[in-house]
Amino acid sequence: MIAPALAASAADLLAAVAHAIDDDALDSWPDFFTEEAPYRIVPRESYEAGEPIGILSCQGRGMMRDRVLALRTANIFEPHTFCHVLSRPALSRAGDGTLASRCNFALYRTQQAGGTELFAAGKYLDQIVERNGSLLLGSREVVLESRRIDILIVLPI
Amino acid sequence: MIAPALAASAADLLAAVAHAIDDDALDSWPDFFTEEAPYRIVPRESYEAGEPIGILSCQGRGMMRDRVLALRTANIFEPHTFCHVLSRPALSRAGDGTLASRCNFALYRTQQAGGTELFAAGKYLDQIVERNGSLLLGSREVVLESRRIDILIVLPI
Amino acid sequence: MIAPALAASAADLLAAVAHAIDDDALDSWPDFFTEEAPYRIVPRESYEAGEPIGILSCQGRGMMRDRVLALRTANIFEPHTFCHVLSRPALSRAGDGTLASRCNFALYRTQQAGGTELFAAGKYLDQIVERNGSLLLGSREVVLESRRIDILIVLPI
Repeated sequence: MIAPALAASAADLLAAVAHAIDDDALDSWPDFFTEEAPYRIVPRESYEAGEPIGILSCQGRGMMRDRVLALRTANIFEPHTFCHVLSRPALSRAGDGTLASRCNFALYRTQQAGGTELFAAGKYLDQIVERNGSLLLGSREVVLESRRIDILIVLPI
Repeated sequence: MIAPALAASAADLLAAVAHAIDDDALDSWPDFFTEEAPYRIVPRESYEAGEPIGILSCQGRGMMRDRVLALRTANIFEPHTFCHVLSRPALSRAGDGTLASRCNFALYRTQQAGGTELFAAGKYLDQIVERNGSLLLGSREVVLESRRIDILIVLPI
Repeated sequence: MIAPALAASAADLLAAVAHAIDDDALDSWPDFFTEEAPYRIVPRESYEAGEPIGILSCQGRGMMRDRVLALRTANIFEPHTFCHVLSRPALSRAGDGTLASRCNFALYRTQQAGGTELFAAGKYLDQIVERNGSLLLGSREVVLESRRIDILIVLPI
């Protein structure tokens, strides 16, 4: 079992990352990761088949920042907002002493002219590590239930 | 960081408020607030623009009770039920020592003849205070993702 | 108030049960229950009317295993995957010293050819008991918001 205070901090981290995306605070989004953290978005079917190619793949904060900058510059998609609802994460110790987390989520999108609709459901598979007394994402795999991928998925989720 | 026992009590309060609405126990809904607590429902766009006008605004328990009574008396809308799913709240200390809470939610509505559908998604922005050993809402702002507001929104959310 | 460590363990149990269904690990699903635990799926309307007949009713692990086996054998429905998002459970002490839990949920279904959609919303009403140092479901009632029941509901939810 994970110590309650650590479990709470890990869940707080997941909430903070979700809120950063919801708030369109994408410039600070890479700061939730370690310098070299991989970030990948992959459909469940590919994930379960062990296919290495995802929808989006970043290796480390630098690539994440480039991705956010590209989004800011080439803003070709309809304005929208995101709202995440996270389930309780299941936490366990990985072999190397880091925390492994699985957290189901639903992501709702609201477009300027329209109503709110389900954009995606899936799970975050995270490695959570401590750096200088704070928790960070050492890796994140976003496994989406659906294969039907919207072009907007170039965004962080 | 908020002490774990206090954080748990705050999250329990948010769940209890949601369940009261889900159970149509609206008569007891104002009891989750302090006597003078403001309650406001506002679309995200207006909230972010700092516009003072919301969709619904109550100042204190008295106005909340009036609102509930009006609903009970002039029951002009189709019967339905609500079901809230809350994300993990992000808690922090406000300047005055009270707790500030942000909690994303999805709200599902089921109408008598129909299926269950997403009614709203958004976040509760709450001030949580202690009164006689219990936690209460010292203020609540319900920020809805969508501007498209159903007439039913005269209900507490 | 429930001790924080116990509350965390109870919430972890609920997450584990949901993940087992999401992972289609239905063979291990009955193991989350006590040997004689009742499991029932019932629409909210029937539940509130006190009607004894549910959509699905199992009495104990044996019946649950039979149900899963039947599903595995007579696989007549379109392949799909489930993804649960759970709200925070409200926990209380039942008269007999066991834990009573109420946990709202949204359940998303993804069919092979399609996108992800809301399949059901509702609440788990559970009795949680300790057996040999672990928590188990001593009973589970799945109360669904909608009366419109898909044939797929022969599945555990």
